[in-house]
Amino acid sequence: MIVRPHQHWFLRLFDWHGSVLTSILFRLSLNLLMSLVAILGFPWYETLGIHLTTAPFSLIGVSIAIFLGFRNNASYARFTEARTLWGTLLITQRSLLRQVKSIRTLSLDQAREFADLQIAFNLSLKHQLRRTDPLTDLQRTLPPRWHNAVLHQPLATTQILMCMGEWLAQQRHEGHVSDIVWQSIDENLNHLSTILGGCDRIASTPIPFAYSLILHRTVYLFCTLLPFALVSDLHAMTPLVSVFISYTFLSLESLAEELEDPFGTAPNDLPLDAICVAIERNLKAMNGDPLPEPLQPDKYFNLT
Amino acid sequence: MIVRPHQHWFLRLFDWHGSVLTSILFRLSLNLLMSLVAILGFPWYETLGIHLTTAPFSLIGVSIAIFLGFRNNASYARFTEARTLWGTLLITQRSLLRQVKSIRTLSLDQAREFADLQIAFNLSLKHQLRRTDPLTDLQRTLPPRWHNAVLHQPLATTQILMCMGEWLAQQRHEGHVSDIVWQSIDENLNHLSTILGGCDRIASTPIPFAYSLILHRTVYLFCTLLPFALVSDLHAMTPLVSVFISYTFLSLESLAEELEDPFGTAPNDLPLDAICVAIERNLKAMNGDPLPEPLQPDKYFNLT
Amino acid sequence: MIVRPHQHWFLRLFDWHGSVLTSILFRLSLNLLMSLVAILGFPWYETLGIHLTTAPFSLIGVSIAIFLGFRNNASYARFTEARTLWGTLLITQRSLLRQVKSIRTLSLDQAREFADLQIAFNLSLKHQLRRTDPLTDLQRTLPPRWHNAVLHQPLATTQILMCMGEWLAQQRHEGHVSDIVWQSIDENLNHLSTILGGCDRIASTPIPFAYSLILHRTVYLFCTLLPFALVSDLHAMTPLVSVFISYTFLSLESLAEELEDPFGTAPNDLPLDAICVAIERNLKAMNGDPLPEPLQPDKYFNLT
Amino acid sequence: MIVRPHQHWFLRLFDWHGSVLTSILFRLSLNLLMSLVAILGFPWYETLGIHLTTAPFSLIGVSIAIFLGFRNNASYARFTEARTLWGTLLITQRSLLRQVKSIRTLSLDQAREFADLQIAFNLSLKHQLRRTDPLTDLQRTLPPRWHNAVLHQPLATTQILMCMGEWLAQQRHEGHVSDIVWQSIDENLNHLSTILGGCDRIASTPIPFAYSLILHRTVYLFCTLLPFALVSDLHAMTPLVSVFISYTFLSLESLAEELEDPFGTAPNDLPLDAICVAIERNLKAMNGDPLPEPLQPDKYFNLT
Amino acid sequence: MIVRPHQHWFLRLFDWHGSVLTSILFRLSLNLLMSLVAILGFPWYETLGIHLTTAPFSLIGVSIAIFLGFRNNASYARFTEARTLWGTLLITQRSLLRQVKSIRTLSLDQAREFADLQIAFNLSLKHQLRRTDPLTDLQRTLPPRWHNAVLHQPLATTQILMCMGEWLAQQRHEGHVSDIVWQSIDENLNHLSTILGGCDRIASTPIPFAYSLILHRTVYLFCTLLPFALVSDLHAMTPLVSVFISYTFLSLESLAEELEDPFGTAPNDLPLDAICVAIERNLKAMNGDPLPEPLQPDKYFNLT
Repeated sequence: MIVRPHQHWFLRLFDWHGSVLTSILFRLSLNLLMSLVAILGFPWYETLGIHLTTAPFSLIGVSIAIFLGFRNNASYARFTEARTLWGTLLITQRSLLRQVKSIRTLSLDQAREFADLQIAFNLSLKHQLRRTDPLTDLQRTLPPRWHNAVLHQPLATTQILMCMGEWLAQQRHEGHVSDIVWQSIDENLNHLSTILGGCDRIASTPIPFAYSLILHRTVYLFCTLLPFALVSDLHAMTPLVSVFISYTFLSLESLAEELEDPFGTAPNDLPLDAICVAIERNLKAMNGDPLPEPLQPDKYFNLT
Repeated sequence: MIVRPHQHWFLRLFDWHGSVLTSILFRLSLNLLMSLVAILGFPWYETLGIHLTTAPFSLIGVSIAIFLGFRNNASYARFTEARTLWGTLLITQRSLLRQVKSIRTLSLDQAREFADLQIAFNLSLKHQLRRTDPLTDLQRTLPPRWHNAVLHQPLATTQILMCMGEWLAQQRHEGHVSDIVWQSIDENLNHLSTILGGCDRIASTPIPFAYSLILHRTVYLFCTLLPFALVSDLHAMTPLVSVFISYTFLSLESLAEELEDPFGTAPNDLPLDAICVAIERNLKAMNGDPLPEPLQPDKYFNLT
Repeated sequence: MIVRPHQHWFLRLFDWHGSVLTSILFRLSLNLLMSLVAILGFPWYETLGIHLTTAPFSLIGVSIAIFLGFRNNASYARFTEARTLWGTLLITQRSLLRQVKSIRTLSLDQAREFADLQIAFNLSLKHQLRRTDPLTDLQRTLPPRWHNAVLHQPLATTQILMCMGEWLAQQRHEGHVSDIVWQSIDENLNHLSTILGGCDRIASTPIPFAYSLILHRTVYLFCTLLPFALVSDLHAMTPLVSVFISYTFLSLESLAEELEDPFGTAPNDLPLDAICVAIERNLKAMNGDPLPEPLQPDKYFNLT
Repeated sequence: MIVRPHQHWFLRLFDWHGSVLTSILFRLSLNLLMSLVAILGFPWYETLGIHLTTAPFSLIGVSIAIFLGFRNNASYARFTEARTLWGTLLITQRSLLRQVKSIRTLSLDQAREFADLQIAFNLSLKHQLRRTDPLTDLQRTLPPRWHNAVLHQPLATTQILMCMGEWLAQQRHEGHVSDIVWQSIDENLNHLSTILGGCDRIASTPIPFAYSLILHRTVYLFCTLLPFALVSDLHAMTPLVSVFISYTFLSLESLAEELEDPFGTAPNDLPLDAICVAIERNLKAMNGDPLPEPLQPDKYFNLT
Repeated sequence: MIVRPHQHWFLRLFDWHGSVLTSILFRLSLNLLMSLVAILGFPWYETLGIHLTTAPFSLIGVSIAIFLGFRNNASYARFTEARTLWGTLLITQRSLLRQVKSIRTLSLDQAREFADLQIAFNLSLKHQLRRTDPLTDLQRTLPPRWHNAVLHQPLATTQILMCMGEWLAQQRHEGHVSDIVWQSIDENLNHLSTILGGCDRIASTPIPFAYSLILHRTVYLFCTLLPFALVSDLHAMTPLVSVFISYTFLSLESLAEELEDPFGTAPNDLPLDAICVAIERNLKAMNGDPLPEPLQPDKYFNLT
């Protein structure tokens, strides 16, 4: 995710990094080429009775803008829901540890073991959503006595949640935790389950494929035909206006596709690495342990 | 549901499967035919003083796009609500089994019996929503002692929920479960009831019929009249532009109709089979039982 | 509510029942008349310097479409909220009875008495929302010992809720129900209160009257002036296009008005009768009692 | 709030009360005047090379319609949120009293004292939101022993909530209420606090001032310039079309401003007086006390 | 935040403060300059065959308006979510203190200590969101015995929440608070954690950078090219219309950027100072302590 600090409005016009410009540059060049073809071919194809005017393109352009606005809404809703789920993860982990630490008879080491389970849960969820291998991270953070139940399991994140439930059941069994207090803590474990399920749902259910397909096609066909419609009015100015209009439609279509899967590592996706470290910092601070450094954006203001 | 992996933007333009193109192909051909009629009849009907211009079609076209955008929103909201309900089903079943397993005095076989009830609940709900016969699936998964109460009942899914409540009441009666723990587990049974009721509501309440009807009619009338309005401006280019505009409107109208009932088996509907297997895998993993294989999309990336 | 099964796209174009066409037919005829007046009067009023063109009507037409889209959203939101409340009613009643039946010391007759109170609550709510007389239905379903507290009371539905609370307080008093279990059941009684209050709010608070008024007026003025603006471009085709555009705007305005009060008995309103029977079936099935027949749509697919 | 019963569509066109017409009449007259100026000045200013056409006004008009649609959404969302909060107030007060009355050891007089505190809370909230003096109402409804803690306090509504909490704490102290039951009742007191805070937030936080300002200005500038753009096309018809378009934009802008503060006493604001009486009727009925008359709309269908 | 009281519609047209006019004045002047360039250069560049017409600008203008409407929605949603979170903060703090004060065995001094922790929490959260130094405020409000655990800590706000949890655990340990009551109070501490996490999420996650960038660029390019497209139709009127259209687009784009970070101190941001004082007043009133003065807007109606 790009976390650009405030920028002068004029400089922002020429900011290169963090836009989707790189991914549509080739297609914009194609559009420029089509504009030149339209200008050069104009005198010739007019004699053939081929005739395109701006009016019907205005109709279809505005319609596509309306549908594209809808698709942007849907993609952005997925992005914000994913962000809210990870925000809730921080909140829930903090509440969980506060509740665990309010049990007066627990030692600090026991609280640390629980915090380690929590940190492992976050990392395992991150790797699951990005389809990367969690093994190294889990070996580093997971308390050894839970290694067997979690490592090399197909559903590692669910298993860690099970371990947290077992840890809690053991405390209740040993009398550290009354039924009432168990209930309050268990409710937060349910929240973790909700977050896991919610992220999983976003990752596994794309926006209906036909939406992407229909808009992808209409946007491209629209941009391809546009120069031929503009040329009779604009003559030499066709490339400028055609590329401008195409830029607006192509870049928003491209961004909508990028935001659709918010767990990736593209410049507009969520900084899961940074959030994982932030949660770890919060939990460590509550136990009075030394904090890891917060992640900083790189020189292109990109935070992973 | 189509779960197409990332595709090059150019190839995507020609992707055939998973679009709604097949279902509107005949109507697009009709539109093409009308365009040819408009071109051929143009010299003749102009002499009759019949006269259609683009301007009023721009007005009605943009208005229809606005209303179609609204209908798409409503259909997509039903789709996402249905998906969220099935996501919550996974979450709740996982939380339920975690709570049941945290009762230290229960044997693994008792946890397995409860998990079987859960799996039967999911399958029964799926069959109810798709209006298919649940008998084979229920006989396979349901523990025998509950067969009488569920099989051949008109409201099988509700009955399974009743059985889960009875199972729980029995554990409370036998002293395995305190009132407080019962309360926490019972809350998740209420969640199951909420999911069942929510899916049922979506399946039984269509979008008000008049909306579909009004938009269906206006979209078709618009597409039919369009060639006659375009022909005076575009002459020979009429078929291209007319089919393009019609494709945008017809395909989105058709998709909105498909998404309206998200529990069907059309290419853009929810993969209930796959979700049922995924929940079963989660529950089996929590009991340490062998996992069924996850469902894979077929060669057209279609997941049922 | 119209529950039309899937229909071929071509037949659907000519479906008469369930559209709002009947209610706007007279107004469409007026529009047709105005179009004829515009054609006939055209040569004469052009000599007077009276002059209307399509351009400003495009501006006002698209603006009205945007505002009408907003009004449709607001009306449809009321419709879906009302439907969700009645869906939640089914869910809550089912959960309530499941909780009551999990009390091991209660006899089946006591559970039946409670179920009868629940059924009476639904019917009373239905009659309250439709402003019909609940007396016959209440006398039939309500257990006799509660007749005094409910029948002929100005706030019958609230009173039934009070009776359910009293029934529960009595069970707690007699030791059937512990405080914890009482709390869980009481929470569902609160849900009933929420549903009652929510339906009441929708029924008693219309969309701000000025919205309906402003849009009603602008839509009508727009449709009335439209033929005079179209005639200079379209000549003989004016009636066709004018009636088409008017149909789109008038029918959506008319439908928005119909959906605004979702508890009525118009073709697009909620099938409260059918839902009441469905809930009764669910509750009776849980007690093992004979089920009433589910309501079926009539031959026009209308379900009340 | 205007609660107009169903009206024939034709009569509705000429309904005067309840529209915002009165508040924009002067501005519409100004627009009419500008139209006449445009017609009379047209021959003269055309010689000056001053030249306005409809096309750019179509662009700016549709853009303003889109932004105005957004502002209407925001205002209407405030209105519905406010209405929902007051609906929840009724629900919560009813649930609270039902819970209090389920305490078997409380006398009817004690329940009445609590109900009086509830009624005072509603009235105090109403006066706070409308910035009127609550003294008379509070003296009439508040039980005398709480007068000291509430009357003449700067935060009277909060104080009444405190008194309800104290009343409840006393019952717990005297053993009428167990901890569990206290918890259930206390949760509803929290709901009251939520409602109070929510209403307060709406009343104290307007929509960002710049939104109102930008739209107010652009709508007025647009309406002022419009006649001069229309006149070259429409000649003598300019006043009709110009006033029509201005009416649409001005009335919606004016309504959005009225709805922005839903607690006022304008014709489209919430009927807080009527809701307060409705809640009082519900609470009195639950105690079997005589009911006050429900408020009726006046002859202009206005309910305060 | 500007809290302008009701203003006459005519005066409002010329209100200077509180608009975003100051921040776009330079850009509007540039646009005026471009318009003059377009008028002066018009005769010359027409001979070059350079040719821009209004039609394609209408298409791109309306599309940008649609996308800008979407961006406004997203920014405003952040603003209202932030406002709701701070509203919930007031509600939760009030509920928390009411619950603490209902513990009969606590002295007033202990309630005051807890209230001081609450006030410090609000101030610390405010300073964290605005990235200012909380030291002075914390030293003033925080009870001395918690100074060590909070001051100079990197995550001060989280630490204060921990202290509140510890204070509560101590009361439970000393027998003032039963498990059930602890549960109710602990739930509100979880609410505080939710508010903290929610505000943090809004502050740390901007709207995807590419959205801002794409719209920023297209709006500016559009406004720059606009005069050249208008000049052939409007001649001398170009500056008026061009600046008018640019004002609408630039001001809304600028406002969307301002609202995106609602915790700043710009004129349309949230009045966190005033809300902090309001919460302090509520808590002090509940303890019967002298109230600080509420913050008043300055002479430009600005409330910080």
